[in-house]
Amino acid sequence: MPMKTPILLTAQEAEVIRALRKKGQISRMQISDITGWSKAKTSIEIRTLIDKGYLMEKDEGLSEGGRKPKLLKFNDQLGFIVGIDIGATSIDVLLADVFGNILQHVSEPGDVRQPPKTVLAQCIILVDQILKLQGCQGDQILGIGVGVPGPVDFSRGVLVAPPLMPDWENFPIRSFLKEAYPTAYVVVDNDVNIMALGEQRYGDAIGLDHFIFIKIGTGIGSGIISNGKIHRGSNGCAGDIGHICVDKQGPICRCGNRGCLEAMAAGPAITEKAIKAAQNGESELLLRFMKENEGIMTPELVSAACREGDEAALEIIRSSGQMIGDVLASLVNFFNPSHIFIAGGISNFGNHLLVAIKRAVLRRSLPLATTDLQINFSHIGAIAGNKGVIALVLEYLFVDEDKPFLSV
Amino acid sequence: MPMKTPILLTAQEAEVIRALRKKGQISRMQISDITGWSKAKTSIEIRTLIDKGYLMEKDEGLSEGGRKPKLLKFNDQLGFIVGIDIGATSIDVLLADVFGNILQHVSEPGDVRQPPKTVLAQCIILVDQILKLQGCQGDQILGIGVGVPGPVDFSRGVLVAPPLMPDWENFPIRSFLKEAYPTAYVVVDNDVNIMALGEQRYGDAIGLDHFIFIKIGTGIGSGIISNGKIHRGSNGCAGDIGHICVDKQGPICRCGNRGCLEAMAAGPAITEKAIKAAQNGESELLLRFMKENEGIMTPELVSAACREGDEAALEIIRSSGQMIGDVLASLVNFFNPSHIFIAGGISNFGNHLLVAIKRAVLRRSLPLATTDLQINFSHIGAIAGNKGVIALVLEYLFVDEDKPFLSV
Repeated sequence: MPMKTPILLTAQEAEVIRALRKKGQISRMQISDITGWSKAKTSIEIRTLIDKGYLMEKDEGLSEGGRKPKLLKFNDQLGFIVGIDIGATSIDVLLADVFGNILQHVSEPGDVRQPPKTVLAQCIILVDQILKLQGCQGDQILGIGVGVPGPVDFSRGVLVAPPLMPDWENFPIRSFLKEAYPTAYVVVDNDVNIMALGEQRYGDAIGLDHFIFIKIGTGIGSGIISNGKIHRGSNGCAGDIGHICVDKQGPICRCGNRGCLEAMAAGPAITEKAIKAAQNGESELLLRFMKENEGIMTPELVSAACREGDEAALEIIRSSGQMIGDVLASLVNFFNPSHIFIAGGISNFGNHLLVAIKRAVLRRSLPLATTDLQINFSHIGAIAGNKGVIALVLEYLFVDEDKPFLSV
Repeated sequence: MPMKTPILLTAQEAEVIRALRKKGQISRMQISDITGWSKAKTSIEIRTLIDKGYLMEKDEGLSEGGRKPKLLKFNDQLGFIVGIDIGATSIDVLLADVFGNILQHVSEPGDVRQPPKTVLAQCIILVDQILKLQGCQGDQILGIGVGVPGPVDFSRGVLVAPPLMPDWENFPIRSFLKEAYPTAYVVVDNDVNIMALGEQRYGDAIGLDHFIFIKIGTGIGSGIISNGKIHRGSNGCAGDIGHICVDKQGPICRCGNRGCLEAMAAGPAITEKAIKAAQNGESELLLRFMKENEGIMTPELVSAACREGDEAALEIIRSSGQMIGDVLASLVNFFNPSHIFIAGGISNFGNHLLVAIKRAVLRRSLPLATTDLQINFSHIGAIAGNKGVIALVLEYLFVDEDKPFLSV
């Protein structure tokens, strides 16, 4: 029973759906408690929600003896959720049910610097592929979530001034995908916001109200949760910490400024420092690794050198960690999070990086702000984005009629 | 009819009270709309709220002709709200009605470095004074809000590691005041959080979802609004930007670290630089002003020198503005606020300071984050705290029973 019309609900209907999403199943009495509806009104409203195809009564075969209240659950035949997690060099596409269970997952290399039409056409091929795997049709997709590695104007669903993917500036991702899947709602968000959401729904951040999720890779970005909700800021670009200034005399960053955190401490800076250390005789190990890799240095080789105790490699990582930690110290004073989760390619550098980050934060933050602060790698780091993009769709698919965000 | 018992409401009752606070008066139908209650239930619940003494029916004398729905409003005989705004060197005490209208206001010099019992005893004398002015009794106080210039653990209502007022660490402000006014609820918050709330309720920030309110005086602090709500962070100390590092080789701050923003750019640093400029012959004007003021330099004298175009004074202010702007640039990248409001004693330095701050922010923030960013002095700066402390009490006085924050 695919939806052909906008899914707009009254505030109370949306509340019922939210409770359903949280608890999986729910009794009539619980619905009455949540909404404050009378018994009679509850019955009528539930009937409407069942008729609209959102709810269904739970299989009575499960009840045993006595008079059990009939439970209600999501109509799992309502349709499917698609997640598209676009990374700098890869594309993950997921199919999930309305409970958020991931049913299918395909992944292949991609290049986000290509024009949006090229990349999104590749995405559509992948979506069609998972639909086929699941044996279902495009018009059964209720919602599509798209995560992109750049600043997103969330309300318009477009990238704005994205340094990694300039061709995508203002490209109408939503309408492009809606042309292929007209029944689906499309929501677009920044990749690290999505990872933060994934951590909050499926990782170690369940129940946390104030935390920062940091991704360290080719760039450095963060997702912010304040009072339990994603803080996107006024233009939707909150969390863009990669271009905070670390050294006014530092190297020029791709953003045009000097000494940005990203230019000083992220993947490319680590590689560059490692090449220097290999070439100027500081590290024979790095030189050997680079030669064995056809003369190409990578962050992974620096990581491998760290594991063998190479002092030059360790110093490069410690220095990155310290710069990241110095920036985080400022943000800890400002934001007072209970947790900082770290993920991304560079997080594979393990404890050396983490210790350097922690040390810098503890040295420069106020005591009260670090009393309970925990800084750790995300345990679900690699799949936080995949999980989060599905959670994002579910969050916005059923919305209050007062905030018909996705009807735009 | 003073309340002798905790004001705990059901979620829906609290919703009615919130709507009342917002709209002033409200019809039965509006209440039914807001809560989803049936007509019958609405009648019963309103009767309960009237019996409890929260609501009253609006004077029917006002209705003219036809059949008008009876409007409901707050029971203005319910009691009074007291605000205590403790600054570093002054105490403001306010009396307001349940609508937040300020009825009485007294103010006198104070010294927050004195022991809490001394300062709070002074506050109690002032509260008794305004009660007398208004001709009412202590047991008519419904709630007392206290603003203090230091980091507050909001849930416990105590100061934690306050640099300006070390004696207050963990002092039980709430129970001390409740001894004097047993019927009153007491809520304690950081002074700049309260100013931010005041700006949001009565200033230029009405309706704004994401902004930062900055107070620059002897110290530098900020109040943060995210998604329309005060962001207090995990330990209640969010916004403490005065100790963000500006220069690792800078002077030692009272917090023990080097080169904190506060130590480099706030009032005392400005005074110190001005003394130097006066003494080393850089500014004859500053020297003259200082001599005329019994050899004592103050930020006000630096401001006066700026107004006369004194180059050394201007450079001192520009330099402060630039350092503050550099820190704000990082926070703008991270938080993406739509507005920054500036208040506090140093904001009297006017445009020179503001221009320097704006320039630094624009130079170092990402374009998307500054597209719509507005940085301005708070127009209600001087009274933002007074207004905010009353708003704070009203916010927390009528709470959902699920979150009986103030029953602690």
